[in-house]
Amino acid sequence: MVIMSRLEEQIKFILEVDKLKNIVRQNYLVDGSRKEDDADHSWHLALMCAVLSEYAKEPIDVLKTMTMVLIHDIVEIDAGDTYAYDIKAHDTKRQRETAAADRIFHLLPPDQAEKIRALWEEFEEGVTPEARFAITLDHIQPLLLNSGSNGKSWKEHQVKLSQILHRNETTHEGSETLWEYGLGIIHRNVENGNITNDLQE
Amino acid sequence: MVIMSRLEEQIKFILEVDKLKNIVRQNYLVDGSRKEDDADHSWHLALMCAVLSEYAKEPIDVLKTMTMVLIHDIVEIDAGDTYAYDIKAHDTKRQRETAAADRIFHLLPPDQAEKIRALWEEFEEGVTPEARFAITLDHIQPLLLNSGSNGKSWKEHQVKLSQILHRNETTHEGSETLWEYGLGIIHRNVENGNITNDLQE
Repeated sequence: MVIMSRLEEQIKFILEVDKLKNIVRQNYLVDGSRKEDDADHSWHLALMCAVLSEYAKEPIDVLKTMTMVLIHDIVEIDAGDTYAYDIKAHDTKRQRETAAADRIFHLLPPDQAEKIRALWEEFEEGVTPEARFAITLDHIQPLLLNSGSNGKSWKEHQVKLSQILHRNETTHEGSETLWEYGLGIIHRNVENGNITNDLQE
Repeated sequence: MVIMSRLEEQIKFILEVDKLKNIVRQNYLVDGSRKEDDADHSWHLALMCAVLSEYAKEPIDVLKTMTMVLIHDIVEIDAGDTYAYDIKAHDTKRQRETAAADRIFHLLPPDQAEKIRALWEEFEEGVTPEARFAITLDHIQPLLLNSGSNGKSWKEHQVKLSQILHRNETTHEGSETLWEYGLGIIHRNVENGNITNDLQE
């Protein structure tokens, strides 16, 4: 049996998560040139956390929130990206992602594996101030990118207003200000036809 | 004159830096499938900062270091990626990057613009414990990716051992442990021929 040093275990994890760069999301970059990858997305959320933390509804630990968004999608290396509006895939999402967390986070030395896995669970449960704010960022960022690319992904998937509002039911819990801004984006994109308004009388 | 609200200025910055996802670096992903982009790279460094901070040579503020690596390459949106081993491009690097910092960071409200610009300058100067550790991560990560992809980028550019050692003259200043690990990678890749040994007697 090979006994790996602590650093070797950490490097093995660092090399393994390189695969997050190959997990492609459904939304496009602002310039519409290509769909963004999960590592791009996670970087963007972490930077948003640095710039926008003043709008968190409750006081947050910024380092904890930043680390949370950096690791929140790592399970998708095994489980794949589950599109926000794919109801069928959401049935098996939890099971696929838990198995992925078991495998990937446990490449780390036990103390770090437990800590990072707990941080991922905290994000999934969404009940602490940090998790609520991280989820708000995770919901607002695709609105910014979709709107910036003139609704490219919304139009491709014919996404409806009711779906977006349902998806964003808890977005205000992390930040009223950012949700208000997000709602403005949604309304403008209903008006210009990028989002199908299925709630009209 | 349009007076933008604080949040509108912050969102403008968030949308502008989306372009970092289109700046392509010279090194390949571990699987060799494509070159990584600057946002991927910055995400990877931030995660390495979370996992490897215990090896910093001096005590560091982890949040500050993480924020530093998240923003360290943003100037490349205007200035482009200057390949580590392109001596000619390095002559004009500072000038190109300073102009970029003036433009991009100042999209933010003044207080945040000054803070983030100062953080970028601190990284460039490389004299604080946080900047030293950030630079070490920035130098070790490509070694990991190059070695992982069987030296693909080293072989493409016929990179020589003397160039790598010159590039890494200060890498040990952020972390002796990580530099020792990096040196091991370099030696293994000289032995297997991925790096040309131009220092042999």
